[in-house]
Amino acid sequence: MSDDPLKRVLDERRERHTEDLFDLLRIPSISTDPARRADVRRAADALVAELADAGFEAATEETGGHPVVLARRQVGDGRPRVLIYGHYDVQPADPLELWDSDPFEPEVRDGAIVARGASDDKGQVYAHVKGALALLEAYGELPVDLTFLIEGEEEIGSPHLAPWVERERERLEADVVLVSDGAMLPDRVPTITYGLKGMTYLEVRVRTSDHDLHSGAFGGGVPNAAASLATMLAGLKDADGRIAVPGFYDEVAEITEEERAQLARVPFDPEAWAASAGVHATPGEPGRSLLERLWTRPTLDVNGIGGGFQGDGSKTVIPATAFAKVSCRLVPNQDPLRIAELVERHLRDLAPAGTEVEVVHLNHGDWALSPLDGRGVRAAAEAIRRVDGRDPVFVRTGGSIPIVADLQRLLEVEVVLLDMGLETDRIHSPNERFDLELYHRGIQVSAETLRALARG
Amino acid sequence: MSDDPLKRVLDERRERHTEDLFDLLRIPSISTDPARRADVRRAADALVAELADAGFEAATEETGGHPVVLARRQVGDGRPRVLIYGHYDVQPADPLELWDSDPFEPEVRDGAIVARGASDDKGQVYAHVKGALALLEAYGELPVDLTFLIEGEEEIGSPHLAPWVERERERLEADVVLVSDGAMLPDRVPTITYGLKGMTYLEVRVRTSDHDLHSGAFGGGVPNAAASLATMLAGLKDADGRIAVPGFYDEVAEITEEERAQLARVPFDPEAWAASAGVHATPGEPGRSLLERLWTRPTLDVNGIGGGFQGDGSKTVIPATAFAKVSCRLVPNQDPLRIAELVERHLRDLAPAGTEVEVVHLNHGDWALSPLDGRGVRAAAEAIRRVDGRDPVFVRTGGSIPIVADLQRLLEVEVVLLDMGLETDRIHSPNERFDLELYHRGIQVSAETLRALARG
Repeated sequence: MSDDPLKRVLDERRERHTEDLFDLLRIPSISTDPARRADVRRAADALVAELADAGFEAATEETGGHPVVLARRQVGDGRPRVLIYGHYDVQPADPLELWDSDPFEPEVRDGAIVARGASDDKGQVYAHVKGALALLEAYGELPVDLTFLIEGEEEIGSPHLAPWVERERERLEADVVLVSDGAMLPDRVPTITYGLKGMTYLEVRVRTSDHDLHSGAFGGGVPNAAASLATMLAGLKDADGRIAVPGFYDEVAEITEEERAQLARVPFDPEAWAASAGVHATPGEPGRSLLERLWTRPTLDVNGIGGGFQGDGSKTVIPATAFAKVSCRLVPNQDPLRIAELVERHLRDLAPAGTEVEVVHLNHGDWALSPLDGRGVRAAAEAIRRVDGRDPVFVRTGGSIPIVADLQRLLEVEVVLLDMGLETDRIHSPNERFDLELYHRGIQVSAETLRALARG
Repeated sequence: MSDDPLKRVLDERRERHTEDLFDLLRIPSISTDPARRADVRRAADALVAELADAGFEAATEETGGHPVVLARRQVGDGRPRVLIYGHYDVQPADPLELWDSDPFEPEVRDGAIVARGASDDKGQVYAHVKGALALLEAYGELPVDLTFLIEGEEEIGSPHLAPWVERERERLEADVVLVSDGAMLPDRVPTITYGLKGMTYLEVRVRTSDHDLHSGAFGGGVPNAAASLATMLAGLKDADGRIAVPGFYDEVAEITEEERAQLARVPFDPEAWAASAGVHATPGEPGRSLLERLWTRPTLDVNGIGGGFQGDGSKTVIPATAFAKVSCRLVPNQDPLRIAELVERHLRDLAPAGTEVEVVHLNHGDWALSPLDGRGVRAAAEAIRRVDGRDPVFVRTGGSIPIVADLQRLLEVEVVLLDMGLETDRIHSPNERFDLELYHRGIQVSAETLRALARG
């Protein structure tokens, strides 16, 4: 047995830590699906029950959408105040037929927990929960004043959280915010992420007639909604892969020389990365390295498209309507609302004759950048050195956690992104996974980070 | 009461003629839907039962797909041999939510029978059935040797009928083939159609990865199946609306001066036509009149498209796969198989890097042209003059009835297209309809055409 009381608790509770995460993963808390509203609340209630049981002042709080879990344990004697943010909601599991097991019946396969939300973000935020509870069990008290803020709307862009945080600002005051909702580098190189992208997400709806038409009676004389939409989407990028929306790159900040040097130090194998993505090409903005594109350049993707006859076989119809989901990942200093307007305007400009266009702005989120020499970053780096026996790498990412930008802005606090997952976790995809060892490592890193923060 | 025995029967049986068609329309004989196989057969059986009951030698015959109805009543004394072709299968009814009534519970609204298949083609082919049965009741025998060939796979491109016709050629020998599966001109101007388009119908499937990807982790570095597909589809036409597939127009026969004169005589109001289509523009191949494009020029349409996330709200996924249905309407002297190959090759050429393309050839059909001075055309024109009190207009159409081309070729026989519907019948669309008066007029025109043929 270890001499370290924390280590001893972690060893003893290891099985339990896995089983309890499985219970949380069994709840299909899909925030995008109105039919899952009760399940979303059930996940929140489960977290509140566990944290209250451990002596936290814990409750679900109403935001106007899915509730947040707010749990606090505070001594108030001047020790560091830490806020841990995460989300208990998950992405839809479709297409279900591509899963090798039930997305909401977790199992361990090839050393990993396989379930929707295993890595994004239940597994990672729950590692923090278990880390704090292990510290409590080992030492009888936490080394910091700790608040958990675990929301249920991250996967729909956290529409209600920022206003709620603004209202509850006093209760949320902290010296450091910890967030784990990302991936380490390949080969389990530990990372601390200092930059996140922003986002804007639109739905484009086109209409060319008030009813579907027969291609034999009307073909050659009428616009076609699916064809119009294809033409519009094709016009969003030029042949080289550069985003063709006028003004799109105007506010993009070039990375600094220091950042470029940091990028060069990152262990990154484009071929291994492409293999993990399952792709045979890595196209994108010309004149930029792959890593530069992924982490520091804005992107645009078509997330979904539909229109006309999608069944088996053939139907000779000219679709009257079609739609696409289009989103952009944004970087400093792009304004998500402005970019949404530019993309909308360009789509309207691209619409062929006879094509009515409606653009719905689904959600927006700011990008974020954190200081590399802050108190939280140093503590997290120290914890990683202790647990992993090596220095972390400081990285940026193509992902967005809009609320991180909001927390940084609203609470005027340092936000540290302590990545626990892997890029091969297949988040948002079938067979999402979280490495079992990395889950238990995450619990330990979380606890050690709180101890390092207490040491100052 | 009329002195004409036929007219007397038509008056007496009018209610019954409507009710019996309603019974046929209640059977959801959707040939594209494997789940409706039994319903398709039920429609065939109903027709066989009625024709056998009237003294036809009638049976369903197996083709390898949905059965054909073959019903013959022959004296064999040298009277004209007439084959009436039609189809009892119908298009899918989706999107169901756009119907104002159950598509398979016919009702009369605004003077029209509203149901899937009302006009295409149950209502029209059944008018011939009732016309023949009325002649039988009125005179005790038919004036011609008559064969009904009513198939169940027209809406999926009649994949099994041509080989069956080739095998059964001797039983199908005829002097004239009558087909009613089309629309008159607006204002109920009676027409006889002398030209039909051919068709080729493809499904394009693209794949850019072996799994869907998260746009935050992979955006900016991977191909996007939905975006690749949009780019490919956009490249099928140039900015002017001309089909951009190399070689596509090579075999297209320009219309003759006589045909151009015929076109000019057709009463056609482009604005009224656009209003009936519910469109605000009538784009198409440049340098051609709208009517010329609709009837005499080849066309290309995207019939359906799908890929990625199509649910409510947002999902930040990069789709790994997407598909589209693409079809062309073809004119003399285009070869459907060759055009399919050209379109496939062009789609492959347009595929962006990292995009795997699969093209499924769903079906093909030949175009057809009929002589304007044939025995059948003259008889049909005489019947129209008798029933409608005016001359028919001779037209071409953008629609395809592949089997008409096959019948013309395999049986070496004149095919007469006797249109009974209207362009506003919303065939293939929600709220398909067939004007009630035109249904009863169709019964009469059919019977009078057989009488005119017997007169020679």
